[in-house]
Amino acid sequence: MDLRQVIRNIPDFPKPGINFKDITPVMENPEAYRQALEEMTQLLDGTEYDKLAAIESRGFIFGGPMAVEQDKGMVLFRKAGKLPAKTRQVTYDLEYGTATLEVHVDALNAGDRVIIVDDLLATGGTALASAKLVREAGAQVAGFLFMVELEFLGAAALLQKEGPVFSLVKYS
Amino acid sequence: MDLRQVIRNIPDFPKPGINFKDITPVMENPEAYRQALEEMTQLLDGTEYDKLAAIESRGFIFGGPMAVEQDKGMVLFRKAGKLPAKTRQVTYDLEYGTATLEVHVDALNAGDRVIIVDDLLATGGTALASAKLVREAGAQVAGFLFMVELEFLGAAALLQKEGPVFSLVKYS
Repeated sequence: MDLRQVIRNIPDFPKPGINFKDITPVMENPEAYRQALEEMTQLLDGTEYDKLAAIESRGFIFGGPMAVEQDKGMVLFRKAGKLPAKTRQVTYDLEYGTATLEVHVDALNAGDRVIIVDDLLATGGTALASAKLVREAGAQVAGFLFMVELEFLGAAALLQKEGPVFSLVKYS
Repeated sequence: MDLRQVIRNIPDFPKPGINFKDITPVMENPEAYRQALEEMTQLLDGTEYDKLAAIESRGFIFGGPMAVEQDKGMVLFRKAGKLPAKTRQVTYDLEYGTATLEVHVDALNAGDRVIIVDDLLATGGTALASAKLVREAGAQVAGFLFMVELEFLGAAALLQKEGPVFSLVKYS
């Protein structure tokens, strides 16, 4: 199945001029969802890793099934104030204002090789903040994994300084 | 494995006097996570359904792997402003203020039998709002599925008016 035919374009979301890639039809079609997960898993062939770090909230949609299938732990990277135990935080710039991402301090150990998972790579701000959280725990970024990459935004070049970037569907 | 030994208590989160049930250690342990998913799936034995409606964001953690494994579509129920296409909304009361939950109008069809999935049942406000979204689409609530139920809060009695309630780990 051509996943590009399942992903749909929503013009002018979240604001005029942005052509949003809507992946919700992929999850509504179990054949498409399974294919996406299988092909994302294949992208990691040859990459050694211990944990999947899934970025809230659409990262959970891919990190969860892959963690179960690949027998890896899934660690949640969440927005500020959602995780109940002691956290490590990183605050990063958005187009307007800032955002904070957190992980439980006991969720990553020194030396863990971590794949950072999200649905879509756009400007890479959240992914770079995630890499910082991994490094500050003494762990390593084994790679970044996305279902969709907006290649024309050029974020992969920034992320590659932290680790390899794997994307299933690229829009150039 | 006794999942109660994996779920941990975080006292005084999100506010003094609340003993928060933290399920993140379950996802960090692939054996525990797989067991939770298998046992949640077993709870649905004998229940006919077409779609899993996963409530943002921890519902995605369970709805995603179950959808893939059970060959069902997963529909996302999200907070206001996150879904890009045309949505149906419901606004409901919280302890302080209100919250809005949305679903894409084309994600549910009349007659769909829907299981509403979330990580934890507390007071049931979000689950009841989800049931309303299902009904307003002309679809049916085939049941509610939770990994954890705070039985002492009594929400299951409210939900049972909408559909059967299935919970894996109950705290009485």
